[in-house]
Amino acid sequence: MNTFGRLFRVHIFGESHGKAVGVTIDGCPAGIPLSPTDFEADLARRKSGAKGTTPRKESDKPELMTGIFEGKTTGAPLTILFRNENVQSKDYSNLKNSPRPGHADFVAQQKFGGFADYRGGGHFSGRLTLPLTAAGVVAKKVCEKLKIQARLVETGGDSDIESAIDRAIEQNQSIGGIVECRIANLPVGLGEPFFDSVESLLSHVVFAIPAIKGIEFGAGFQAARMTGAEHNDNIVSTEGKTETNHAGGINGGITNGNELVFRVAVKPTSSVSTAQNTMNLQKGEVEALKIEGRHDRCIALRVPPVLEAATAIVLADLMLLEQKARRVIT
Amino acid sequence: MNTFGRLFRVHIFGESHGKAVGVTIDGCPAGIPLSPTDFEADLARRKSGAKGTTPRKESDKPELMTGIFEGKTTGAPLTILFRNENVQSKDYSNLKNSPRPGHADFVAQQKFGGFADYRGGGHFSGRLTLPLTAAGVVAKKVCEKLKIQARLVETGGDSDIESAIDRAIEQNQSIGGIVECRIANLPVGLGEPFFDSVESLLSHVVFAIPAIKGIEFGAGFQAARMTGAEHNDNIVSTEGKTETNHAGGINGGITNGNELVFRVAVKPTSSVSTAQNTMNLQKGEVEALKIEGRHDRCIALRVPPVLEAATAIVLADLMLLEQKARRVIT
Amino acid sequence: MNTFGRLFRVHIFGESHGKAVGVTIDGCPAGIPLSPTDFEADLARRKSGAKGTTPRKESDKPELMTGIFEGKTTGAPLTILFRNENVQSKDYSNLKNSPRPGHADFVAQQKFGGFADYRGGGHFSGRLTLPLTAAGVVAKKVCEKLKIQARLVETGGDSDIESAIDRAIEQNQSIGGIVECRIANLPVGLGEPFFDSVESLLSHVVFAIPAIKGIEFGAGFQAARMTGAEHNDNIVSTEGKTETNHAGGINGGITNGNELVFRVAVKPTSSVSTAQNTMNLQKGEVEALKIEGRHDRCIALRVPPVLEAATAIVLADLMLLEQKARRVIT
Amino acid sequence: MNTFGRLFRVHIFGESHGKAVGVTIDGCPAGIPLSPTDFEADLARRKSGAKGTTPRKESDKPELMTGIFEGKTTGAPLTILFRNENVQSKDYSNLKNSPRPGHADFVAQQKFGGFADYRGGGHFSGRLTLPLTAAGVVAKKVCEKLKIQARLVETGGDSDIESAIDRAIEQNQSIGGIVECRIANLPVGLGEPFFDSVESLLSHVVFAIPAIKGIEFGAGFQAARMTGAEHNDNIVSTEGKTETNHAGGINGGITNGNELVFRVAVKPTSSVSTAQNTMNLQKGEVEALKIEGRHDRCIALRVPPVLEAATAIVLADLMLLEQKARRVIT
Repeated sequence: MNTFGRLFRVHIFGESHGKAVGVTIDGCPAGIPLSPTDFEADLARRKSGAKGTTPRKESDKPELMTGIFEGKTTGAPLTILFRNENVQSKDYSNLKNSPRPGHADFVAQQKFGGFADYRGGGHFSGRLTLPLTAAGVVAKKVCEKLKIQARLVETGGDSDIESAIDRAIEQNQSIGGIVECRIANLPVGLGEPFFDSVESLLSHVVFAIPAIKGIEFGAGFQAARMTGAEHNDNIVSTEGKTETNHAGGINGGITNGNELVFRVAVKPTSSVSTAQNTMNLQKGEVEALKIEGRHDRCIALRVPPVLEAATAIVLADLMLLEQKARRVIT
Repeated sequence: MNTFGRLFRVHIFGESHGKAVGVTIDGCPAGIPLSPTDFEADLARRKSGAKGTTPRKESDKPELMTGIFEGKTTGAPLTILFRNENVQSKDYSNLKNSPRPGHADFVAQQKFGGFADYRGGGHFSGRLTLPLTAAGVVAKKVCEKLKIQARLVETGGDSDIESAIDRAIEQNQSIGGIVECRIANLPVGLGEPFFDSVESLLSHVVFAIPAIKGIEFGAGFQAARMTGAEHNDNIVSTEGKTETNHAGGINGGITNGNELVFRVAVKPTSSVSTAQNTMNLQKGEVEALKIEGRHDRCIALRVPPVLEAATAIVLADLMLLEQKARRVIT
Repeated sequence: MNTFGRLFRVHIFGESHGKAVGVTIDGCPAGIPLSPTDFEADLARRKSGAKGTTPRKESDKPELMTGIFEGKTTGAPLTILFRNENVQSKDYSNLKNSPRPGHADFVAQQKFGGFADYRGGGHFSGRLTLPLTAAGVVAKKVCEKLKIQARLVETGGDSDIESAIDRAIEQNQSIGGIVECRIANLPVGLGEPFFDSVESLLSHVVFAIPAIKGIEFGAGFQAARMTGAEHNDNIVSTEGKTETNHAGGINGGITNGNELVFRVAVKPTSSVSTAQNTMNLQKGEVEALKIEGRHDRCIALRVPPVLEAATAIVLADLMLLEQKARRVIT
Repeated sequence: MNTFGRLFRVHIFGESHGKAVGVTIDGCPAGIPLSPTDFEADLARRKSGAKGTTPRKESDKPELMTGIFEGKTTGAPLTILFRNENVQSKDYSNLKNSPRPGHADFVAQQKFGGFADYRGGGHFSGRLTLPLTAAGVVAKKVCEKLKIQARLVETGGDSDIESAIDRAIEQNQSIGGIVECRIANLPVGLGEPFFDSVESLLSHVVFAIPAIKGIEFGAGFQAARMTGAEHNDNIVSTEGKTETNHAGGINGGITNGNELVFRVAVKPTSSVSTAQNTMNLQKGEVEALKIEGRHDRCIALRVPPVLEAATAIVLADLMLLEQKARRVIT
């Protein structure tokens, strides 16, 4: 389903080329000041337009439809709507028969019996990360003491990101990347052992972001190559501070008071300029498919604010669960 | 919480050194033949005893307490209990003041206000993977057409696993590893876009397994270093079969009919023989802690059946959701 | 929270005097034809305007924002929006200090720390039954084989409803009523023992309708005065048909194949013309409060379509759970 | 499913004539003193043995299996088991073909494809109210400031309960009754508008108790016969105290600080001594069925502690949600 969270619950909806995309947040505490300008910074970071991103231009203006009164949250469901304005009238119906490699076209049609909206990916579109990012803006306000920062640390295998993008443009290729997220000021004790471990909850939401194919916490996959004596973090304060942070701030599924650190792998944009083979479902034969238009060279460039939002959504929920569940922020 | 699933719901409970560990499965279809012997194979694979594993010996006999009648599931909640028999009477109370590095001792006491059962890790213990594995046995029966197989593909950075274990024993060290899971015979269409993507659900349960620090699907972290043209899987049949499988069998969060492939990183066992520094919470000073007893050299050896169980729990739920939700398997 | 359902999930949002009220339905099967005209009949039945109802006039036009493509549901979340148009600009701020007896003004302000939207009841308003009724229209399509009919069987203690309304208008009073709902063509086997009994689920949603203060199934409160021999329904067919239907179509929480019958008690409209005492929270003294404007004489008149909607929401979910959970209606 | 609650989650399992019935409570705060003797009072009240109740004798000794350490809850799942000891070896298999009127025999076999445990009602048995009552004992500790009291106010249509029972025994009949529950010391603000209204949540759990056929809050069905001016409760203190309490302590789904009052209708025991007609499913013909053994004359006698438990489970959850969600009671 399109819902996540226990106390701070996020519901997303919408399609790339329909009327709108949006989000309803249920369980948001009352009394939080909120205005459209609060969304500007993160939405701008997510927006296309920079070198390496798609030129689809949307104003991305959030309409605060419900749950707001006199500039503050009321405790009632908060619905934020984004109209789709820059939707091209071109014909997308060929996607129904010629599913794009790397995209969800094939599975969407199969799963929904041919009734899925295929225009621009429909409900599967990366455009749904817009309401997700908006929900993150609200979530960040709920857990405002935390410092959540994601950044692209590598793209196309290169940590010099500027040059990697230039190279991709020059070579007419799309590339992937690795985004790292760090969260400071966390209290000890968020999360649960087993099914509601912090890793479980974060990875659950993170994999809701299109194009993410891997996640690792702390030393992550490197941990598999360390010895226990190397990997263990010695505890050096009564507050639980550790000398090293191979655990990435989590033990037994629960925050240990150190910085929470994780990295995600972002696959290269699936829309590429070169022709690819796909099965024409109507004709029953393989054909070459060329995807028109200009696309993101490196979707990973736009992932950091979305990843922060996903993280904030989880942590806002955990903060409400653990510290206080009051509906009013005091 | 200690619950996972929508239609096939798994609830785990218990402690390492309490009376028992167990699981209740709610939503299991009626009419499935089930007897204690069905659990033997997977429980034996999970069990300690092999080279590199702890010598704690437990009979691990499942008691089918409820939900079974005349050798078949009834559709009512199925509770499976495992008595803890081989619990040593030794004093664990020092763990309360001297939390072991890499373990959950510190966070458990902090989170639960000093009331957590600290003996052998209490509810945080890896022993809880026993009822998880048992739930997996039932889940495998629910989705019996699927072929779910996990295996250790690397340990201590070495794909020759036998020699890596020997080396770890010789050097008196604990080591980590990488476990790969492959699922064949999946239908197209399991999972949802966004929050209930197959990656979201699988990673959610997988990170409930203690010691897992990373997960990647298909090409995973390597995908971040590929171009789109390299990474995209060309579709070559009307059933969605692809030439390559960099996506790991999932597009847009939904199974695409190809083999589902993912890998997890297992950290080295945290209980090591050498002395480590930790904070003595009572004295307020750092002290050297030496953990007595014999422990797993490589917990990753015991992960494959647990990982299969986690996978089966997710897929049983998705199969019931997508294909039929009837209470009776016909 | 503002959510109900397991597979067919309904999320309501909005305020009486804000921009809009609306609903998102997640889990609606794909391929269901749906257009704004489908909503007309039930929305008209719910609408004010008849004798005994409030003269607030709203066009109540549903905007199908998402989840629809080419006139059919897509399987993606379906969001339906209703703009609030006929919102009077009058000042409601006195409600914050002088809570109306019988209304939620007092609890809303207390619960949400003074931040609740108090205009016309805000999120607590009966206007939220508009999106609930819209969700019911969709739900009825999902379980279209069922025949769900609710009607007002008594108002002001009188089964001659026309004359009771006339009397209430004449005497300048508001009155309550009893609404009965009958559902035919139900299969045997919907619902679960205990927490997901059909009575549990129906009453859960029914008490979400403002003004409902009681519910009884079958013989209901009369059953408490019968003997077992009188109350038991003899089974007279292999399909489970019974001679009598004191159980109201449910045994052990599960539909038994007979007509499902329940009745609800609707309290009299809380907005009355005569002055009432309330506590002025600012002054700390009891004062007489006179509520201006014209209001429903008998809100029970408008309950039947809302009750049908609540019922359809539960039954659509149970039908999907029990018969098939496929996303596509075939 | 067999689960209820958001933070304080109750999972029940077991069968009347299987090995055991039990409950797991997840989300119980840590640090609550708990021993088997704490259960004695409520379990004794629920127990059979009094005049008018069945003579099945069970020791009903709770085994605290998990979640307890050194006499206190740990914050981990709390599993409480009750062995079935006094299970008679008689043959129940005729119930499969000759479903008892008023019981769940027919629906259980239909729903679960003939695999349900039919002995003594199996999982549908009133014996499941034993773990429910045990969960209530724990819940009462979580919300110990509340005073929750249920009592039988009428049976067989008579408020002189003693004489009604005597009459039922003399006339060899089973009778129903009405149980009233009152909760004092509630804070203002528990519950939510709409789907999580206090009425919704209470009725949800209350209808999980077998034999309940109706529920009404405050004036309840009488409210349908009152005028608004009569029914409205004037507010007479800044804490929300009202002159009358027709609302039963709830406005807009939320506790208003007054006593919460509700009543439930309990049907007469379905097991009666006289022969009844039912359909023999094997022969396909109606036959007279005589139910052997001795049964409760008036199951309503045993309902009060179960109703208190249901109420406490809801209120413990709401108290944790609203006031603090900390895992530790301080």
